[in-house]
Amino acid sequence: MTIKDVTAAIRRIPDFPAPGIVYIDITPLLQNQQIFAYIIELLAANHLENPPDYVAALDARGFIFGGALACQLGCGFIPIRKKGKLPHKTICKSYDLEYGSAEIEIHQDAIQPGNRVLLVDDLLATGGTATAACELLKELGAHIVEVAFVVELGFLAGKKKLHEYNVHSLIVE
Amino acid sequence: MTIKDVTAAIRRIPDFPAPGIVYIDITPLLQNQQIFAYIIELLAANHLENPPDYVAALDARGFIFGGALACQLGCGFIPIRKKGKLPHKTICKSYDLEYGSAEIEIHQDAIQPGNRVLLVDDLLATGGTATAACELLKELGAHIVEVAFVVELGFLAGKKKLHEYNVHSLIVE
Repeated sequence: MTIKDVTAAIRRIPDFPAPGIVYIDITPLLQNQQIFAYIIELLAANHLENPPDYVAALDARGFIFGGALACQLGCGFIPIRKKGKLPHKTICKSYDLEYGSAEIEIHQDAIQPGNRVLLVDDLLATGGTATAACELLKELGAHIVEVAFVVELGFLAGKKKLHEYNVHSLIVE
Repeated sequence: MTIKDVTAAIRRIPDFPAPGIVYIDITPLLQNQQIFAYIIELLAANHLENPPDYVAALDARGFIFGGALACQLGCGFIPIRKKGKLPHKTICKSYDLEYGSAEIEIHQDAIQPGNRVLLVDDLLATGGTATAACELLKELGAHIVEVAFVVELGFLAGKKKLHEYNVHSLIVE
């Protein structure tokens, strides 16, 4: 298994969810047990010697990789969710979308100052969501050890927006 | 670690998301690395000798446990999602909510007839979503080896609706 096998398994769906957009469908990567296990192994590799306190992940596809990664690294899991989904006291951050804006939240007591956190999501596009997630984590005092993605769309330059963090993308398109 | 420690870590939030409802908040179970690992160990225990082909899980909290469980058992992962989220050809099932109805989908090519599938979600309430998910899996020819939950709200009798499946709940309230 190499990273080329992972790239080859990505399914590209034209005009989803809107005309002109080529959607990166990662469900075939999950479906194939060898590929899924290999992705988790690669995401974990940088952290085996010094695991973070928490893996934080973004609602909803990030949860699949984040849950597996937390389990693999033996650390806790922190969900960052779309507004209105977390039931306890939260802090909230809005970020720009192509049209309009959206908001994500984290529980106020999810993290203690100084906790080492690895943020993971499936896809880095413009970086708006990931930047907002990092700001939430920092507001709670987290030390963000890495921001990891399975696929990065390089032409959208999301990595620039995340310049102050260690960004680790398994695949850059 | 015993199941009592897991039960004790559940956070109960009164009047969320609506007045009169006591919300079962499982985020403290994820946050605590020992508890999270113990839950995945318990969910995996029935399947170590004969792992399923796939773990299927429900959007969004089910993804956290499902991703970890698939990784632990060394099998593939199949997402079952709210309508409009899966980009390829899907089959769809609607189910009743307290007010109105909702729809969930699965990719048509997610499963081949005869595949052994373990369905997992965080919470069994009335069983509407899980029943719809099982119907989708069966429509694709899956053999559902078990339907597993972290918490079952026994007083809502969701298990009755799932009477034709092996239901495994770690905690019954």
